Order: sequence, then structure tokens, then C-alpha cells
Amino acid sequence: MPKPINYADASPAVRAVFDDIKATRKVDDVNNFWKHLANDPATLARTWESVKEIMAPGALDVRTKEMIYLAISVSNGCGYCIASHGAAARKAGMDEAMFGELMAVVGMANETNRLADGYRVPVDERFENLF
Amino acid sequence: MPKPINYADASPAVRAVFDDIKATRKVDDVNNFWKHLANDPATLARTWESVKEIMAPGALDVRTKEMIYLAISVSNGCGYCIASHGAAARKAGMDEAMFGELMAVVGMANETNRLADGYRVPVDERFENLF
Amino acid sequence: MPKPINYADASPAVRAVFDDIKATRKVDDVNNFWKHLANDPATLARTWESVKEIMAPGALDVRTKEMIYLAISVSNGCGYCIASHGAAARKAGMDEAMFGELMAVVGMANETNRLADGYRVPVDERFENLF
Amino acid sequence: MPKPINYADASPAVRAVFDDIKATRKVDDVNNFWKHLANDPATLARTWESVKEIMAPGALDVRTKEMIYLAISVSNGCGYCIASHGAAARKAGMDEAMFGELMAVVGMANETNRLADGYRVPVDERFENLF
Amino acid sequence: MPKPINYADASPAVRAVFDDIKATRKVDDVNNFWKHLANDPATLARTWESVKEIMAPGALDVRTKEMIYLAISVSNGCGYCIASHGAAARKAGMDEAMFGELMAVVGMANETNRLADGYRVPVDERFENLF
Amino acid sequence: MPKPINYADASPAVRAVFDDIKATRKVDDVNNFWKHLANDPATLARTWESVKEIMAPGALDVRTKEMIYLAISVSNGCGYCIASHGAAARKAGMDEAMFGELMAVVGMANETNRLADGYRVPVDERFENLF
Repeated sequence: MPKPINYADASPAVRAVFDDIKATRKVDDVNNFWKHLANDPATLARTWESVKEIMAPGALDVRTKEMIYLAISVSNGCGYCIASHGAAARKAGMDEAMFGELMAVVGMANETNRLADGYRVPVDERFENLF
Repeated sequence: MPKPINYADASPAVRAVFDDIKATRKVDDVNNFWKHLANDPATLARTWESVKEIMAPGALDVRTKEMIYLAISVSNGCGYCIASHGAAARKAGMDEAMFGELMAVVGMANETNRLADGYRVPVDERFENLF
Repeated sequence: MPKPINYADASPAVRAVFDDIKATRKVDDVNNFWKHLANDPATLARTWESVKEIMAPGALDVRTKEMIYLAISVSNGCGYCIASHGAAARKAGMDEAMFGELMAVVGMANETNRLADGYRVPVDERFENLF
Repeated sequence: MPKPINYADASPAVRAVFDDIKATRKVDDVNNFWKHLANDPATLARTWESVKEIMAPGALDVRTKEMIYLAISVSNGCGYCIASHGAAARKAGMDEAMFGELMAVVGMANETNRLADGYRVPVDERFENLF
Repeated sequence: MPKPINYADASPAVRAVFDDIKATRKVDDVNNFWKHLANDPATLARTWESVKEIMAPGALDVRTKEMIYLAISVSNGCGYCIASHGAAARKAGMDEAMFGELMAVVGMANETNRLADGYRVPVDERFENLF
Repeated sequence: MPKPINYADASPAVRAVFDDIKATRKVDDVNNFWKHLANDPATLARTWESVKEIMAPGALDVRTKEMIYLAISVSNGCGYCIASHGAAARKAGMDEAMFGELMAVVGMANETNRLADGYRVPVDERFENLF
């Protein structure tokens, strides 16, 4: 059922989103993710608007944002997302050393998250003033 | 069973780790996390050595690493880890705007990870050359 | 080790479960899931009895139940379960618009779950009277 | 840092979102979730617009949508979200029998998702024509 | 809504399950988990029958089974389940050293699971003959 | 980018880790996991040292540790880890009946974790003295 929809077969509303993706990202065609989402034009439009707004440079630069996106995708085990945001992070400047350190932090965070839960560690009072 | 162990009651091996944590982080006392891990001195020592090595500045700066750590902790719903690494990220320079954008990326990644899995999106060939 | 067991090679106890699955679902053969579970006849029998009881129409109709099953499978990133319960939901009447809205809710819930955890939002008192 | 922002202390942009939430939901005050998100007005506005669009009645009725939202929140173990969407589902008509069946499906889906992954079950070809 | 149901207020069907739990486990009262599940007698009965069957000694002893149950509960971050199955594992003979090693394995598995996903490691052919 | 590194192309530091893995495990070649990690020699060395220390026999035997590792990998849905630790558990003596019971416990734990969260079950006081 959720087959990808290519530009040639897309409705005007879907084409408008595809055109904006291509113009914003300076690419010839949109990724499979957007072609599948096109089955639900409302979700396609809303998701693209959100991604475009969130991933624009702001207090954090694009490379940092893509690396955080990749970190979450790895933690969730989402194969498509690891590939697509791995590629996006690389295009945004993530080199091999950065990727190695990113993975090290992701792995360590997943380890210590379980140690904290398993040892039932209560929150330190001092954190409350900081966060 | 897994009660916290304070410095005064700690074995020399545990004290040595606590001393290194305090010296490295320039703090008066270690967080509850380490006091609970002290029930298993081997895990305490190994975890601290790994954290110290991984969280040192390298290809990524400390602030970026703490924000990635926080992002994973939020995604896993680990209350202690959100509080402790939220505090650590703030000490490392994360301001309110950065936190807001970090959370926006974490939320969006968790949303699109499920959209990609649910629509059963196949990996685009072009990603393979990039990642 | 956990190879699938076909009807022809199954023990009488496994065949009895397979026969009940085929009769209940009006299908010619059982899905791969059951053929693999057949390696552990106790788990096969118990799981089928539970699924049959839980997925029968009750306060919720079958289509709603299959869509909830699919929502969880998507959230867990279980490829087999997304395919099998996607197919089951479709057979039970889920059309494209329903699937689109289901995915939108699943995505949004995964996003806001993290926002709630990350911002450390305390539970509103008013909820206690309602749930 | 991420302290809740009440209406009296909110900026005009935040107040506009709060006013729309109160009008749409016919409530006197917004939930804690929105007061915390108000620390990042862009995320507040975007999240509310998305929630309003996604949770409106469409191919699926509001009660079904709230129950799916609750199912995901339970599966993620998000305490705030379980309480808030449990209350919302109840207001939308979920009775005790529906909640019981919802939980039974959520539990069973989480169980069989792991059985399918652990037994390494390959996807049945027949599913491809259906989903 | 999902308030606990005590023995004195329970229906005969619920009391029968409570009696069996108390007799099987040789305890004076059932845990809160069962009192809450009692809101849905079908789920109460089915869950107890499954737990009783699965947690009985078999190819694996009770202590090993409770430690695996605890490991999953820690990995899922379920606070109630960590406390209840931590207590059960301890009653079944898990001492402090065993708990420490259990947590170390749980932490390491959660770390390397992400490293394997993030580095996109393909399955070694040799594993297929073994598992 | 994260392509596997074979022994012939590895640096002396990487070869030293590979040699230790081969000697410790008495195998001719290391698994793909280590060849991919070799892209980040610091993570390779640290991860191997941790795995070697944690998976050595101690208060828990190797078979129990590998089964816990497998249980977490199944719960996380990590395909590579299920295959590699399934093979390791089998080499360490896990037979078909043990695997069947392991999977039954993993499935049940994932089910009851969600029931406990969804019914918002408070922790029984009696657990505090035990765990």
C-alpha cells in the first residue's frame, strides 16, 4: 500500500513540496522518505515544514544538528534513518574522527543510562539548580 | 542492596576512582551515580575510565558531546541521566536557545524514525556512496 | 537453530495449534511467525491462545486492535511485525487515509514523548481525577 | 532552566498559542507540557499546530487517535504522556473495558515483537501484496 | 480509573487468581501489579497463567530467569519492574556480585548494540551455521 | 565511510587488538563488528578491553552472560547483535530448550513492563527492603 510516489505521478500539492525540498537542498530528486510520505500529502507537507524549520542553522550549526539526528537514529536502530542522516551529516562536514567520537558517546550514553536505572540512582539535589 | 557508598566508607580502590573524578572535574564530591556504582568496584573503575576518555575534547568539543549525551538520555527516558547530563551540558555552555533546538531535533528524529519504519522506506542508493 | 517447522514435519501438539490458527483465521497455511515459534511448543500454544483471546472483537473492534498492534510494532521498529500487522490491519479494513493518520499519530506521540521527558514536565494535578 | 511559563508572564507570541489551545480545547488553562515548551516559542507554535492538525477528527475519530497516542506513550514508558493522554482518551470516551483491551494489545504487541526478532522470522511473501 | 483492587473488594474470579498467586508464591498478599491488573480480570488471569508457566524452573533455573527479567526491565527503564524483579531475583539467590555482573553485561550490550547499528555492520556468514 | 578494516590493511595498534581477540577466543579471524570498529582505534581497544573483562567467567558463568547479552539484543531489535550473541550463546552451551525459555522470559518481561507502566502501578513498600 504505501508505495513511493514519483514526481511525474504526483499531485500539484505534492509537487509543490517536492519542488521546495529540491530547491532548499539543491538536489535533483527527493529521497525515498519523501516519496513514501507523499501517500499522505498532509503529513508530507507538515513534516517537511517542520524539518526545514528545525534543521536550519540557528543556535546550533547544521553539522551539529545532523549529528544529533544521527545519534538518535542509531539509538533507535532505524536503518533508513542511519543511512540518510549519516549521509547528511557527512555532507555537512562530519569527518571520520567526528563520527567515531559521536558513536563512542552514543554507546556510552546507552550504557550508563541502564546503569543509572538499574542501580536506581536518585537525582542529586545539586542538579536542580543547574537544569 | 545497591545502596550508595560515600567516600568515608569506601575501600582504597574506590577512593582512588573518586579522587580521580573529583580532580578531573574539579568538584568537591562525586555524583550519586558513582556512589552507587561503587558497589561494583570493577564497573566503577571501567566506567569512569571510559567516560573520562570519551568525554575529553577531541574532534568534538565537550559541549557538543554533552548535548549528544543528553539527546540519547532524553530519547531513552532516563530521568537521572537527563538531569545529570542536562546539568553537565549547561556547565559546558549550552544556553536556553541551544537546549530548545536540541530538543526540537530529538523530537523530530524520533518522529521521522517511526515514519521511515512505518512506511517501510528502502535505503536510497545514493546514500551508499556517502555513508 | 531456530528453523521454521512446517505442518508436514510438526508434532501432533504443534499440528493442533496450526489447525486452530488456520480454522480461526480461515487461511491455508500459518505465517512464518508460528512456524518459528513451533520450535518451542509451549510458547507456541500459549502465544496463540493469548493472541486469539486478545485480538477477538470486544469493547474494541478488530480493525482498531490491529491498528494499535501496528502502531506499537512501528514504534519498536520490528520489521516482521510491521509487515504482518500492516497486512492484518489492511485485511480488517484499514484504508490508506486511516494508515496515514495512524502514522501521523505514532510519529507525533514519539516526538512529544521526548519533549515531555526532556523538559522534565511534572504531571498536572487535574489528570489524577481523570486517569 | 526549562521552568514553566505561565500566561501572566508569557510573551504575546506565546499567549497567542495559549489562547488558541484554550479555545480549541475549551479549557481554562493549558497543561504543564505547553507551559514548559513555551521556553522555546518556535517549538511551542510548531508542536501545537501539528497536534491540532493531527488530532482533529478525520478518517479516524478522536477517541481512536487518543488511544493510539496512549499506546505509544505506554510503550515508551513516558510517565507524563501516559497521564495526559490517558486523561484525554478518557475524556474522548475510552471506558474501562476499552482501556483494558488497549493495554492487552499493547502488552501482547511488545511481547510478540521480541519473539519475531529473537527467532529471526523472515517476512512472508504474501504480506507484500497486502502491505 | 485504573485503581488497585484489594482482595476484600474483589470478585470471585479475581479472588481465585489472587489465591493461586499467594499459594504458588507462598506470600500473604499479592503485589500492586496484580491488584491493578484486576481491573481487567481476563488480562489478570491470562498474565498470571503465563507468568506462572514461564517462570517455573525448566531448562533454566528460577534465578537465571529472574535475572533475565530484571535485565530487560532495566533496559526498558520500567521503574516498577526493576524494583519488583530486583526483589524477586534477590529472593531467588542473586547476590551483590551477580547483580554487579548482570548490570555490567546489560550496560555493555546496550552500548555495543548501538555501535553495531551505527557502523552498519553486516552479519558474518559464519553465524548462520551457529544460530 | 565506516568500511571494515581487514588484518592485512590494519595499523599495528589495530593488529594488536585483533591478535588479542583471536588468541582469547581461539578463532582464525575477528568478526565484522571488530573490523568496523577498527575505523576508530580508541573505541576498538576500549570496547574490546571492556568486553573481555565483562564476559569473563565470574559470579556468573559465560553461558548465562551470553544469554543475558542475547536477551538485551533481542529487546533492542539489533539484528547483528542477535546473530552474533545467539551464535556465542550457542557455543557456550545454550541448547534449544534454554533458548526457548529465554525467549519466553524476554517476551513476557516486555509485555508486563508495559502493563506496569500503563496501569501506573506504584512500587510496593516491601520491595524496598529487598532491592
